[in-house]
Amino acid sequence: MSLWGGRFSEPSDQDLRALNDSIGFDIRFYREDIEGSIVYALALADAEVIRSEEARAIVAGLREVLQEFETGDFELQEADEDVHTAVERRLIELIGDVGGKLHTGRSRNDQVATDFRLWSMRAADRLASELRDLQAAIVETSESQVETLMPGYTHLQPAQPITVAHWLMSFFWMLERDQDRLGSARQRMSICPLGSGALAGNPFCLDRQQIAADLGFDAPSQNSLDAVSDRDFVSDLLYAIALCASHLSRLAEDILLYSNPSFGFITLYDRYSTGSSLMPQKRNADPMELMRGKAGRLVGNLAGFLTTLKGLPSGYNKDLQEDKESLFDSCDTMHQLLPVMTAIVASLQVNPEEMIASLTEELLATDLADYLVRKGVPFRQAHHIVGEVVRLASEGRTELSALPLPSLQAISPVFGADVAEVFDFAQSVAKRRTYGGTAPDEVRKQIALAKTRLTS
Amino acid sequence: MSLWGGRFSEPSDQDLRALNDSIGFDIRFYREDIEGSIVYALALADAEVIRSEEARAIVAGLREVLQEFETGDFELQEADEDVHTAVERRLIELIGDVGGKLHTGRSRNDQVATDFRLWSMRAADRLASELRDLQAAIVETSESQVETLMPGYTHLQPAQPITVAHWLMSFFWMLERDQDRLGSARQRMSICPLGSGALAGNPFCLDRQQIAADLGFDAPSQNSLDAVSDRDFVSDLLYAIALCASHLSRLAEDILLYSNPSFGFITLYDRYSTGSSLMPQKRNADPMELMRGKAGRLVGNLAGFLTTLKGLPSGYNKDLQEDKESLFDSCDTMHQLLPVMTAIVASLQVNPEEMIASLTEELLATDLADYLVRKGVPFRQAHHIVGEVVRLASEGRTELSALPLPSLQAISPVFGADVAEVFDFAQSVAKRRTYGGTAPDEVRKQIALAKTRLTS
Amino acid sequence: MSLWGGRFSEPSDQDLRALNDSIGFDIRFYREDIEGSIVYALALADAEVIRSEEARAIVAGLREVLQEFETGDFELQEADEDVHTAVERRLIELIGDVGGKLHTGRSRNDQVATDFRLWSMRAADRLASELRDLQAAIVETSESQVETLMPGYTHLQPAQPITVAHWLMSFFWMLERDQDRLGSARQRMSICPLGSGALAGNPFCLDRQQIAADLGFDAPSQNSLDAVSDRDFVSDLLYAIALCASHLSRLAEDILLYSNPSFGFITLYDRYSTGSSLMPQKRNADPMELMRGKAGRLVGNLAGFLTTLKGLPSGYNKDLQEDKESLFDSCDTMHQLLPVMTAIVASLQVNPEEMIASLTEELLATDLADYLVRKGVPFRQAHHIVGEVVRLASEGRTELSALPLPSLQAISPVFGADVAEVFDFAQSVAKRRTYGGTAPDEVRKQIALAKTRLTS
Amino acid sequence: MSLWGGRFSEPSDQDLRALNDSIGFDIRFYREDIEGSIVYALALADAEVIRSEEARAIVAGLREVLQEFETGDFELQEADEDVHTAVERRLIELIGDVGGKLHTGRSRNDQVATDFRLWSMRAADRLASELRDLQAAIVETSESQVETLMPGYTHLQPAQPITVAHWLMSFFWMLERDQDRLGSARQRMSICPLGSGALAGNPFCLDRQQIAADLGFDAPSQNSLDAVSDRDFVSDLLYAIALCASHLSRLAEDILLYSNPSFGFITLYDRYSTGSSLMPQKRNADPMELMRGKAGRLVGNLAGFLTTLKGLPSGYNKDLQEDKESLFDSCDTMHQLLPVMTAIVASLQVNPEEMIASLTEELLATDLADYLVRKGVPFRQAHHIVGEVVRLASEGRTELSALPLPSLQAISPVFGADVAEVFDFAQSVAKRRTYGGTAPDEVRKQIALAKTRLTS
Repeated sequence: MSLWGGRFSEPSDQDLRALNDSIGFDIRFYREDIEGSIVYALALADAEVIRSEEARAIVAGLREVLQEFETGDFELQEADEDVHTAVERRLIELIGDVGGKLHTGRSRNDQVATDFRLWSMRAADRLASELRDLQAAIVETSESQVETLMPGYTHLQPAQPITVAHWLMSFFWMLERDQDRLGSARQRMSICPLGSGALAGNPFCLDRQQIAADLGFDAPSQNSLDAVSDRDFVSDLLYAIALCASHLSRLAEDILLYSNPSFGFITLYDRYSTGSSLMPQKRNADPMELMRGKAGRLVGNLAGFLTTLKGLPSGYNKDLQEDKESLFDSCDTMHQLLPVMTAIVASLQVNPEEMIASLTEELLATDLADYLVRKGVPFRQAHHIVGEVVRLASEGRTELSALPLPSLQAISPVFGADVAEVFDFAQSVAKRRTYGGTAPDEVRKQIALAKTRLTS
Repeated sequence: MSLWGGRFSEPSDQDLRALNDSIGFDIRFYREDIEGSIVYALALADAEVIRSEEARAIVAGLREVLQEFETGDFELQEADEDVHTAVERRLIELIGDVGGKLHTGRSRNDQVATDFRLWSMRAADRLASELRDLQAAIVETSESQVETLMPGYTHLQPAQPITVAHWLMSFFWMLERDQDRLGSARQRMSICPLGSGALAGNPFCLDRQQIAADLGFDAPSQNSLDAVSDRDFVSDLLYAIALCASHLSRLAEDILLYSNPSFGFITLYDRYSTGSSLMPQKRNADPMELMRGKAGRLVGNLAGFLTTLKGLPSGYNKDLQEDKESLFDSCDTMHQLLPVMTAIVASLQVNPEEMIASLTEELLATDLADYLVRKGVPFRQAHHIVGEVVRLASEGRTELSALPLPSLQAISPVFGADVAEVFDFAQSVAKRRTYGGTAPDEVRKQIALAKTRLTS
Repeated sequence: MSLWGGRFSEPSDQDLRALNDSIGFDIRFYREDIEGSIVYALALADAEVIRSEEARAIVAGLREVLQEFETGDFELQEADEDVHTAVERRLIELIGDVGGKLHTGRSRNDQVATDFRLWSMRAADRLASELRDLQAAIVETSESQVETLMPGYTHLQPAQPITVAHWLMSFFWMLERDQDRLGSARQRMSICPLGSGALAGNPFCLDRQQIAADLGFDAPSQNSLDAVSDRDFVSDLLYAIALCASHLSRLAEDILLYSNPSFGFITLYDRYSTGSSLMPQKRNADPMELMRGKAGRLVGNLAGFLTTLKGLPSGYNKDLQEDKESLFDSCDTMHQLLPVMTAIVASLQVNPEEMIASLTEELLATDLADYLVRKGVPFRQAHHIVGEVVRLASEGRTELSALPLPSLQAISPVFGADVAEVFDFAQSVAKRRTYGGTAPDEVRKQIALAKTRLTS
Repeated sequence: MSLWGGRFSEPSDQDLRALNDSIGFDIRFYREDIEGSIVYALALADAEVIRSEEARAIVAGLREVLQEFETGDFELQEADEDVHTAVERRLIELIGDVGGKLHTGRSRNDQVATDFRLWSMRAADRLASELRDLQAAIVETSESQVETLMPGYTHLQPAQPITVAHWLMSFFWMLERDQDRLGSARQRMSICPLGSGALAGNPFCLDRQQIAADLGFDAPSQNSLDAVSDRDFVSDLLYAIALCASHLSRLAEDILLYSNPSFGFITLYDRYSTGSSLMPQKRNADPMELMRGKAGRLVGNLAGFLTTLKGLPSGYNKDLQEDKESLFDSCDTMHQLLPVMTAIVASLQVNPEEMIASLTEELLATDLADYLVRKGVPFRQAHHIVGEVVRLASEGRTELSALPLPSLQAISPVFGADVAEVFDFAQSVAKRRTYGGTAPDEVRKQIALAKTRLTS
């Protein structure tokens, strides 16, 4: 039995049912649906729309339905088009006609908006916690690599020496922004639509502040028409996830590159690698590729949902049912990705010798220019001079430090014997001690700050 | 047992397995996988890589595995990470070590590309057939509405009278372009990667022309490295579906508008309508809203996959595993949408009186200008004159035909008594008999042409 | 002269220049570039990297360059590949070699990130202000329509009576969430990258707290590698805009529908309408269609940029140059859309008679069920009873109130003579006085709350 | 003077004009607009709607307008809201009222659809030609690298030896599919909407077959309502471009990786590299990064336009005006990218020693398994055996060929002294001579086939 058959003279078409029914996916928030109904029954009693003993019977019945779901004993029936129908149908089976009083003044429009917000708030909390774990793994792995040198890249070309900790910590701050985005999405989400009816509001003078509080929301929604068709919270979460996934994809790209033998900076444990059905030697970083590839899927979920929202008229439209599968998919995907990334970061095997072997003196070209600057050469000229020095070394296929001093002085007389001191990678790194720089002492401060964020 | 354990010193992490394994969705093309393997076994025998009796044993074993799938008796095991592993594992269980010869020279890279192309070709065929059904329904419903007048809209404002058949047939041609897109996608798809190995090609001198032919492909792929990482066919199909869905969304939008009581042009049968849990009077066109809303999802699947493709390095990368779920979802969604749209179009109840009631004489303003044109007034002036006439009628809250001739002549002396003949909606429609116009005779030709397309 | 020629043995290819140069669009933030450089020069002097008189000369030179831009006297040269190059080139022309000291320790990587954040912060502020104007217009128009009745829709089907103010105010809260999104994006944006160098940090012990404060940022960035490649702020703004545009598109859709003559609820002034080159009578709501259509463009800008971000390796990559044109376009589009929407809302002509004419008694079906509920009938039964009543009226083509009492009682004996009182649209609206409901008193409270938001 | 002022009582708002006017971008197809008008004038004369001398005057006037555009003498006026208005306004200025006859029976709806299709057909042709140039460069560079060995990758891990020509030719076939997509898009595009009027068709019995032929279209459109609102051709082109850009992004990614010093496979000429404002040594492959990054922009243009199309009601809606800027941008971007990629491929400096240095014997593991297969070991066992061999070598940090035979035989007694012959990279490549494989002879055939495509 559907919730609405009275005025209809023929049953729904089967193909329409297959298209229309949401029970296949919305059953996922049976718990939130029942919680919302329990609070609603109590609110009806408080407003003297139903009697307290009726409310008690309804609440007891709902708890029994919940129990059936939890134990796997709940049996779906053909007519259960969505979780709301299924729960109300079963409630009436269990407690009789009084169960039919539960929906007084309520619509599935405010009900599903409430259920799905509750579900989303919990999903956001779980994501925040999983992100926290990854951030903690980054901090922990970074702590042991504060002095490990590696080439830093821009444009994927060697740029300047940095430390492994500095590289890894750069992802901490990306994720910290993700936390902030999740947090503000979570806050905007915490608005309770229950008591908005189908669109026009509720005629039974319910205490919506109380309903909101009982369900753990910060406040009730301010406009019933907006409340039933607002899916900003879905979009916000899809967006926070999509951007977070782009950060994961960047870390994945780095790990893929650094674990390529031409780099050789990183080795993944066998348990995080996979093989080939044909090539016996292969050890692939499949999870990193999925991390990168699934970022596309998560962008698609966002783009798709924004497309769905475009141009909808006022009030609830069935188009909005498309909110669920995409958000479920985005959250599930993140629940898969984050623990794997956390484990991989926590167990990262860094190969410092390979990193040092990749440091060439060209990466000190800026330091060489700075050397001239400190002797009074305007930076722009120093840059040009060092450019010529680099070209000279490159054409001679020699390292910078191997160029004889007279050759340097032929380019600029400012060069002196002390130029030799420039060619020290550790010194180059140590010098970058302005706030936020790669100098080990600065990175230690960065890590300390990160730890306060983790525990706040 | 996975296909690649030899060089690994520890088993895969469980979270990685959950992320990595594709058996949850790629089992869907077990049939294509087995068909591909049968043809491959025969090709190995033809090339004398294995003996014919070995090929026979393998083929018989594969048929048994297929049978188990078809009857539901196939049992997955923990180590079955994908459908290829599952099938080979079971084959070896059934026929012994000789089953281990099947994968000679083959990689899952060329295997999955082959399987998924076969699956996609069949999906494209099914979509084409479902589209054909919808086109046929459009033609059939149109045939009975060739003379039915309705207001045509531009900018959602009444523009000129048209016929219902002309309106509906406009969607036939959109879908005809979808057919063309599907068709050319299908053609580009029909290229067989099998025999490309992991990336470098196959060292056993297989006859790939024969393999391609045996599997129903038009030709083998020309470059093994491209072959294993080419997913253009997935993208092409996702795109053809996304644009087709935008057409369905436009038809849905029209039906939603026209079935709104303020229009009242169309009534949906109860079996294609749904009700409200709160408002007893509601009859909603939910399937049309889902038709519109799901267009977003389908755009998202495309945008997401294109994002995944961006910037991948050469050769197969695991990112490409993201091709399947999105294409499955897009195809499944269309398989849900198309039959419902077909049924709704086939059973469309048109309310001609409501349509005629919506025809106001303002819709004849262009005819009025044409009247002046035929009397020699340059169109641009005629347009301006009629604009003033319309303003006069509008300010006087009167119909155009009710304006006294002297009032018209005050605006332009060209108006004569014969102007009265302009105010005839059927005449207006009948006049638009240039090729492709809304005149009933032209629409009949359009329908006749459409029928030849349906049977071609 | 470019900033980097020293080590190069041949000039750039012209096609590469055309592709690579950003001067065509980044000249837009010359002001922010110069402001950043002034603060940077002072910071260099504070750190004793340059002498104070050098800083004074640089600052004076930069002010002169700024002046040239403001007066339109700045002349671009062939080698000016971006705004940074142009400004530094001109500075050195004006003040000589000392100008070449400005870039000491700085990279275009931290420079452009700083410039573009400053520009974006100002853009966000302007958007917030334009949004505020639209919200104010909504409140003002709503105040005069608190008692005006109209049909409320769900699924684009008439649902329950509401008030015009309630309808319009629903958009206030959408925009209020947009404000919140903009606000949190603005806050995350207010982090200063200057002093991060190319990737590794700055070796000159600059006071980055001071630099950040001088430029109006909340704080300096914490990790130099992240700082130069972080474009979350662009993405956040693109997202806030895209979702806001979806809200505008929904309001536009409503206005398009309501100004269609079949509805006739709203009339747009001629100055906000456009005509047809062919059909003299047309008055189209083009701006509303552009409001709706441009939402697509703005979603595209977001989806495109997220695609660009996917899978980038660490550090600055030139791909990030794609951040500017899309954000410029999204902001410019909003600057076009918002004032037009504000003007249209402020001048909205509501036609109350047309709205009342669209109210049919079916919209009171829920009230009829509530009548039964108040007499003790469980809501689910009441819903079914009223469904049958609606069907009876519909089949008899009569209004609900015209059904004789005995006919009602044949369906349910609970109906009494007092049922007549249900058929009052104003009463129906007035009853929905739970918080957030459409009752005029509640809407007045809603408006009062909105006003406090506007002035906060 | 706009084309439609008659019925309006007040001028357009200035902000609305700024939003609404398309002259800023549609002026770009003034040539197509004038060509369409010339053909239309002749068609009007043929149908005896205007006299031949009137047609002659109009055509002469239009040619004069065209001339003004070509010489830069055309002056826009304030009221020129779009290119159609500007041309007609100027025409009437030049030839008087008879110019006002041109628009008889025509609407800007069919006019702009015609103009933009013409423009798009030419854009498609130019793209096809630019693609052809890139394909030719690939073939040419490949021809000189047929025997050059390099490591082939899957999952970005070394997989098997391939040749440089095989790698590069893999992109030829991607682009060949792009050509096919462009070609079928071009074909569907070649349908002439002119003569469809605003939506309902043309009442002047024009010969639309002739019009189509005169303008170079394959056929006239079949349904006037569809014709004016069909933008599939825009979407098709945006899609063909987006997918082609993803191919370019993959080639760019390879070049970026291979030109990283850790690989060192490729060197870009200075003229295709750029430097750093801070780091004097930098030589960045900026154009490759833009190639990759702009793929995002082009995906965004597609996703955005599909979003715009979603849910539009029948007939022309102003939303469709959003078709132009995105297609212009996508085409312009490709016109920038393709020549640069062509030049870079044509001038690619390959470093064969670096490539050979990256070949390790692990890449021959599959050949080693094939060795066992040829001795009768089922492949699956051979794979496992070699896996253990690889592990043994890896743990002993030795090359495969350095393992003593007894160690191999301890793993499998099938190994014989002839195993030494396996360790030959050139042999490994030469063996993959199944159709489409990397063997030099096969690649030569591939190149020959490609050449036939280039000249077809």
